[in-house]
Amino acid sequence: MYVSAGLRLDEIVTRLGGELQGDGSVVVTQVGSLLSAGKGQIAFLANPKYRSQLQTTLATAVIVPPQFAAETALPRIVDANSYAYYARVVALLNPPVKRRPGVHAGAVVHSELPLSASIGDNVVIGEGARFGERVTVYPGCVIGDQVSIGDDSVLYPNVVVHDRCVIGKRAIIQAGAVIGGDGFGFAKDGERWVKIPQIGRVLIGDDVEIGANTSIDRGALDDTLIGNGVKLDNQIQIAHNCSIGDHSALAGCVGIAGSTKIGRRCTIGGAGMISGHLELADDVHISGGTLVGKSLPKPGQYTGVFPLDAHKEWLHNAAQVRRLAKLAERVAELEKKLELMEKTS
Amino acid sequence: MYVSAGLRLDEIVTRLGGELQGDGSVVVTQVGSLLSAGKGQIAFLANPKYRSQLQTTLATAVIVPPQFAAETALPRIVDANSYAYYARVVALLNPPVKRRPGVHAGAVVHSELPLSASIGDNVVIGEGARFGERVTVYPGCVIGDQVSIGDDSVLYPNVVVHDRCVIGKRAIIQAGAVIGGDGFGFAKDGERWVKIPQIGRVLIGDDVEIGANTSIDRGALDDTLIGNGVKLDNQIQIAHNCSIGDHSALAGCVGIAGSTKIGRRCTIGGAGMISGHLELADDVHISGGTLVGKSLPKPGQYTGVFPLDAHKEWLHNAAQVRRLAKLAERVAELEKKLELMEKTS
Amino acid sequence: MYVSAGLRLDEIVTRLGGELQGDGSVVVTQVGSLLSAGKGQIAFLANPKYRSQLQTTLATAVIVPPQFAAETALPRIVDANSYAYYARVVALLNPPVKRRPGVHAGAVVHSELPLSASIGDNVVIGEGARFGERVTVYPGCVIGDQVSIGDDSVLYPNVVVHDRCVIGKRAIIQAGAVIGGDGFGFAKDGERWVKIPQIGRVLIGDDVEIGANTSIDRGALDDTLIGNGVKLDNQIQIAHNCSIGDHSALAGCVGIAGSTKIGRRCTIGGAGMISGHLELADDVHISGGTLVGKSLPKPGQYTGVFPLDAHKEWLHNAAQVRRLAKLAERVAELEKKLELMEKTS
Repeated sequence: MYVSAGLRLDEIVTRLGGELQGDGSVVVTQVGSLLSAGKGQIAFLANPKYRSQLQTTLATAVIVPPQFAAETALPRIVDANSYAYYARVVALLNPPVKRRPGVHAGAVVHSELPLSASIGDNVVIGEGARFGERVTVYPGCVIGDQVSIGDDSVLYPNVVVHDRCVIGKRAIIQAGAVIGGDGFGFAKDGERWVKIPQIGRVLIGDDVEIGANTSIDRGALDDTLIGNGVKLDNQIQIAHNCSIGDHSALAGCVGIAGSTKIGRRCTIGGAGMISGHLELADDVHISGGTLVGKSLPKPGQYTGVFPLDAHKEWLHNAAQVRRLAKLAERVAELEKKLELMEKTS
Repeated sequence: MYVSAGLRLDEIVTRLGGELQGDGSVVVTQVGSLLSAGKGQIAFLANPKYRSQLQTTLATAVIVPPQFAAETALPRIVDANSYAYYARVVALLNPPVKRRPGVHAGAVVHSELPLSASIGDNVVIGEGARFGERVTVYPGCVIGDQVSIGDDSVLYPNVVVHDRCVIGKRAIIQAGAVIGGDGFGFAKDGERWVKIPQIGRVLIGDDVEIGANTSIDRGALDDTLIGNGVKLDNQIQIAHNCSIGDHSALAGCVGIAGSTKIGRRCTIGGAGMISGHLELADDVHISGGTLVGKSLPKPGQYTGVFPLDAHKEWLHNAAQVRRLAKLAERVAELEKKLELMEKTS
Repeated sequence: MYVSAGLRLDEIVTRLGGELQGDGSVVVTQVGSLLSAGKGQIAFLANPKYRSQLQTTLATAVIVPPQFAAETALPRIVDANSYAYYARVVALLNPPVKRRPGVHAGAVVHSELPLSASIGDNVVIGEGARFGERVTVYPGCVIGDQVSIGDDSVLYPNVVVHDRCVIGKRAIIQAGAVIGGDGFGFAKDGERWVKIPQIGRVLIGDDVEIGANTSIDRGALDDTLIGNGVKLDNQIQIAHNCSIGDHSALAGCVGIAGSTKIGRRCTIGGAGMISGHLELADDVHISGGTLVGKSLPKPGQYTGVFPLDAHKEWLHNAAQVRRLAKLAERVAELEKKLELMEKTS
């Protein structure tokens, strides 16, 4: 495990807030879980079901919410959102690698960029780029013409951003992601498909993270919209003209078909699939592996997954699924007969 | 929105056919929907359910099928397939960006190419390439040895085409697609897997579009075949030795397992999954999210999706799915008893 | 089809073992199936259901298991595992293309590498790389800092390997794969997500193959682990802190959510999805398209797929799925009534 130079507990509280209890001079060099942390590590309690681990942890210090602060004698930081606090401590102890500013070997840049930009080896950037300050582009990325990228954004290797797309501030785009490819738009003409040129863009807000090998298509005519604070995992497909509301989070392998609008603060579990031209309200949560085929105007958790079973059991039950309408008819028939018998008896 | 230099309505009809009704001298600079189009835009009516919008649209001109031509006083183009006509007007008003011919900075090319080829910055092309005229390869693409690409094809950034693959004319390959990687072929030897070298190719017909980050594996021994006019969306997986018939269209996140043959004019909805060694007839349509585990010798629409529900409802119903064979037995038992009672009463 | 220089049957047996029966001087230049092979090709019988093809094949020689050796008069190699033997013959007749050692045009290498390494055009390699002998990196790959890659490994074009990841010997990584991107780790803070820096690595054993456009995330704090002999197909997502046991094989489009542990010798069919924080025992086999939402402590085959049907039939049956708990109640009610009637009659 990577070990940092370390920080005193009181230094952490000075920087991140929270309440210090116990010896503030102890130094922590890395984070860890209550179960696995050892000397020099700071652990955290977020889920109450692990509270007994506060007694046994070998961590040097802990982050706890107020209601559990009295359950440990270790030096501790008390904060209502101990998990978010933990996230910030990880960042403090493991600052991101800073890439050297400048245009590096083999990069081909057709635009004027701020001196603070770090353009990695063999990157290609088209004409008319508008970059904010301290943008980092890792090796192998290809950025089209007239692309706009906000301050402090990071593009990992081999990312592709097509012409005229707009990316906000503090974006993190993982390797191999493709932003602004053509949407899948065709008109049928006899048996042939006629391509509809896709002339919209992708507009991405601030504080967005996009996963490895994820693709977001440009709009057909209007733009595809990714709101502020949206987090997209790997291998996701966002089709043309979709809109993803602020602070929604989509797990790996999710697919969103064309023109669908996802609300704010939604979550979609892994491999969730949303059909086209739908609207999901704010605060809708879709379970992993679920296909959504209709709009969902109310918040809540939605699921549609065939339950797992031993293969042999599944064979028996699945066979009945295909006779289910018939079975329901047979039950209705039984009910009718029985009612008649009761009447006549 | 991007605005073109504009075209007169009569110029459009001269180029694309159709019947002009009303003032042919009006100029349109962009397309739009009946609902959103404004001055200078040309809209279209394809779906009869929007016909009332013909009365209220602010568009400058419209494209309509003959049966609705009388329902608007706007300058109009009358064509039986108004949607395909619209697609062609989009293309006319938004011609693709032409990349400069020549081999650009940092490209490493080990073959003789036509002078009309445009080879982008930092592209790599292997030995023995056979390119038609006016092939465009965007930056960061890697083309292997002995690859053949037909006239007017476009490869967007960071596409990979492996050795000996063949791509037809007018192909459009979106960024990050991989053509001709090894198929997933292994023989079991005890607990280990022995790799079967994949020595087939991928052969792609004319007028094919392939989406971003889609992968098509080369054949094990014979070739993987993609027919003319096939359209593949993003994040698709086509395994070794598959064959996709002419003019079939596969939506995002679809997977086709090895040696499966898809007919002509088929469509597969998003995340549809087709098992290996199957045959789907011409004109088979698979709904999104459906797993196909058997061959489908007849045309038609097929579906297999667990219906979405509020999570709590799903829990109740899904629990019963695992008892469905038992439930069917109980109903049969009831039927038997009731029949007996009816006989004896 | 590619045709090799050819090998005598007795030469093959000398190199690969097995028992020669018949004329060892015949020369074979390529493999083929019993059905399609012609002159100069060697076919194999693995599945007994094809044994009758031994009588009709036009192959020059065959590979057969002992129990079928007497059923052909062709020159033959007898081996208990005829399919694995076939795989080795394919490899013998079709040796992998050797790339020239050295650092090629446009490559930017910030590390000292063995002279036996072949670093393709426009590759980028960071600082502190530790490469074994004969590593082949195809054009366009980007390797981060402090990456370790074992002897004889091959990385196809445009692969990305992030800082500090470790890849074993004889790895084959297909184009566009991303190893070591950030895991999807965020803490909720109000409506915002706070990123948890991902400081673990990806550790990959020996003899692993990774498919095109597949992504494997680095661990949050500990490492993501891929065992020896693991085979991953294309378009797969392995989330942070997963562990895949030795010799497991995952087909295309599979997703494994965070912190899940897959045992040894498991197989997961195409588009199988495994939720997070689960454990699958050794020798668990998951059918394609199945979502696994709970740990599976026992070996066996598991399935959860809604059965395919003509769309119209599906509509009828799926409607009943949402009334299934109610239907079960109705059946229970009928049973109660009938029991009462039987008692009172």
